[in-house]
Amino acid sequence: MVGALDFLERARILARNLPEMQSNLNFPWLIYNAYKTMVRRNVNMEKLKDDYFLTNISRRQSAHLQKFPDTKLINLGIGDTTMPIPKSITSSMVERADALSTIEGYSGYGPEQGEKALKDAIANTFYGDLGIKSSEVFISDGSQTDISRLQLLLGSSVSIAVQDPSYPAYVDTGVVVGQTNVFQESEGKYGNIEYMKCFADNDFFPDLSTASRTDIIFFCSPNNPTGSTATREQLAQLVEFSRKNGSIIVYDAAYAAYISDDCPRSIFEIPGAKEVAIEISSFSKFAGFTGVRLGWTVVPSELLYSNGFPVIKDFDRLVCTCSNGTSNISQAGGLACLSPEGLKSIQTIIDFYKENARLIIEIFTSLGFKAYGGKNAPYVWVHFPGKRSWDVFTEILEKAHIVTIPGSGFGPCGQGYIRFSSFARREDIIEASWRLKNLYS
Amino acid sequence: MVGALDFLERARILARNLPEMQSNLNFPWLIYNAYKTMVRRNVNMEKLKDDYFLTNISRRQSAHLQKFPDTKLINLGIGDTTMPIPKSITSSMVERADALSTIEGYSGYGPEQGEKALKDAIANTFYGDLGIKSSEVFISDGSQTDISRLQLLLGSSVSIAVQDPSYPAYVDTGVVVGQTNVFQESEGKYGNIEYMKCFADNDFFPDLSTASRTDIIFFCSPNNPTGSTATREQLAQLVEFSRKNGSIIVYDAAYAAYISDDCPRSIFEIPGAKEVAIEISSFSKFAGFTGVRLGWTVVPSELLYSNGFPVIKDFDRLVCTCSNGTSNISQAGGLACLSPEGLKSIQTIIDFYKENARLIIEIFTSLGFKAYGGKNAPYVWVHFPGKRSWDVFTEILEKAHIVTIPGSGFGPCGQGYIRFSSFARREDIIEASWRLKNLYS
Repeated sequence: MVGALDFLERARILARNLPEMQSNLNFPWLIYNAYKTMVRRNVNMEKLKDDYFLTNISRRQSAHLQKFPDTKLINLGIGDTTMPIPKSITSSMVERADALSTIEGYSGYGPEQGEKALKDAIANTFYGDLGIKSSEVFISDGSQTDISRLQLLLGSSVSIAVQDPSYPAYVDTGVVVGQTNVFQESEGKYGNIEYMKCFADNDFFPDLSTASRTDIIFFCSPNNPTGSTATREQLAQLVEFSRKNGSIIVYDAAYAAYISDDCPRSIFEIPGAKEVAIEISSFSKFAGFTGVRLGWTVVPSELLYSNGFPVIKDFDRLVCTCSNGTSNISQAGGLACLSPEGLKSIQTIIDFYKENARLIIEIFTSLGFKAYGGKNAPYVWVHFPGKRSWDVFTEILEKAHIVTIPGSGFGPCGQGYIRFSSFARREDIIEASWRLKNLYS
Repeated sequence: MVGALDFLERARILARNLPEMQSNLNFPWLIYNAYKTMVRRNVNMEKLKDDYFLTNISRRQSAHLQKFPDTKLINLGIGDTTMPIPKSITSSMVERADALSTIEGYSGYGPEQGEKALKDAIANTFYGDLGIKSSEVFISDGSQTDISRLQLLLGSSVSIAVQDPSYPAYVDTGVVVGQTNVFQESEGKYGNIEYMKCFADNDFFPDLSTASRTDIIFFCSPNNPTGSTATREQLAQLVEFSRKNGSIIVYDAAYAAYISDDCPRSIFEIPGAKEVAIEISSFSKFAGFTGVRLGWTVVPSELLYSNGFPVIKDFDRLVCTCSNGTSNISQAGGLACLSPEGLKSIQTIIDFYKENARLIIEIFTSLGFKAYGGKNAPYVWVHFPGKRSWDVFTEILEKAHIVTIPGSGFGPCGQGYIRFSSFARREDIIEASWRLKNLYS
């Protein structure tokens, strides 16, 4: 076979990879005698820290359950919804699924960008007065997918900023597409990312007067993990900052439905935002669709690259290249969420989770801790001064059998904090309150 | 605001981008007075040809319908399934969707890699004797997503080979992640991709003795678009070629269920393949899930990068970073497909589409054309010697009101061919036969 490599050529390629192989000699997974391909591991994947910290928490949780099999573990950790989806919404999915077994009701590929009826409903419900068009809405199977797709769109050459602390997906997908340098253990940061510090003293809103310019600013409000929500004035500052710098804001509004005061629910409420912002959102925390999978992204046609090319044209092309659309059954569910009846029943669930959040704040306040967030968000962010997050996590897990999230997993500024999720059943919140009182009073 | 750019700094950044802006001055979308960000368009997106050709076909189809509103257009174009999903399968989805409205039946986030029951069922049903473990199966919302995810995994530094012709997603996603050079109009190819010629004379299997070594080989069998299926002997050659070159095969088995002779249904039937291959597959064409969205990827733990690091570890990390799992309702449907009853009912539909393919072959053979594929695949690949694919496409659309796919869209070697899809209703196939007979006899 002429095309195949001869022995010498193969030896040459192996030699090229030798330094890399040697540097890994002490890795436990290296099986010396095994056949290896000659494909080099992606340097970006190599940069990515081994443990996605939420996976790490799952492991700790499983280990704890093995150690204490008779304990009732309460999960206030990952933001996983627990309340059933209102019947009017599941009925729509039932109907759609059932129709797929009939000649008249069967449908195959839908538009990659999503079904028009759902896009229309999203544009009307969430952006009715803001001038966002249905064609600027792209349906997906969730925000996590959209974040990685946006990163693929933007590519390796852009610089990014994130709130510190923030949801790890922005940083991790940035590492994967090659926007960052290696992780610096001493600082708990990847190189070439602007970490915008958010802590109690600045009301969890970054000091933009000291922030460096980046091409992209990931901004999540209501914030995960701090639960803080940017005011209209703060978001106006952010938009002004972006316009001056020619940056693009990727605005994560996944928790917007939890806002009950005057804070904006969409970045597009701020004048001038359409020329500098993309908004991603989701049915997960809004309607309990964490398992059903449905989200959306808004890319305004006014948003242009430096050469004048519309970002929406590239995003459309990318969506058509990387996906074949979102499940038609999930989309039927999404549409039902946005009917008057659907919206009303969803609000009941949101109110329920928010009452949970209020109870969590109450217990910690009564114990003398500072507890933030929870008002416009399903997360409560509690400060344990002088302690390290993972130590507090371990203490609460081992002594109160409650799973939480160590704040340091969201960025260096999360050190000393713990995130409590309110997506639990009421009896679990009450039981957790007792246990925490026992532990800390 | 100190952090924001002053006028001079902004002018400097704009100047840097000026050559790019000037080169685009004649673009129709350039709105001179509009605000532009200072974010440069991703060079990889710039390389990507504007028209995803399947989108182009949709446009042509819509235009034709506008021109001839009273015509019954028959779609033998994109491979979109038309037969309803068997009731036993939709019932499972109905049940799962309905249960989401109850406390006991509700479930939120599932494992990013997919539900264990479905992974077990896939491992048993498709890889029972081949030693593929459930933990090596990753569930997704379809092959298109998996292809782009694999490309993100492999990164911009790898070299790739594709069959010519082949499904455009391999090439397009390669362009997006930065593996290729610009598109060369004269050749109809992107630079830095090995296009492995497949035509009638080589039985649509590439001549590996003349193929250059690449890191990655995308290989689809039964092939889309040619409908040809690699034999056991041919796949053994491919595996040997990859082992000698240290390459990784990304094997697309989306049409494997259509094989009814001795051709392998999985690359893992070939000894030694686990150390050089990844397999992607889908419920779309197997069970009519084009709209429901469900697929899977197998990454054997034996597959190692040149430094000995297991590919599966990086893929697992990437799946957890870029997704929050696949719709639980779709997964319930997938599980039902793999029950004895589900498999039996699906086979009836596959046989139906294959009978359609046989009818398409019959009509073209009777008209004196050479028609390939169709035997182990839902696609028939018809040669129109001396003609250009888009001309034939236009002729068939305008004169017979049938939508097809021009072969040249799948690669330069597809020139002069047309792909006919058998995913149509029987009456449409029969009507199309009459029209084609009228046109070509």
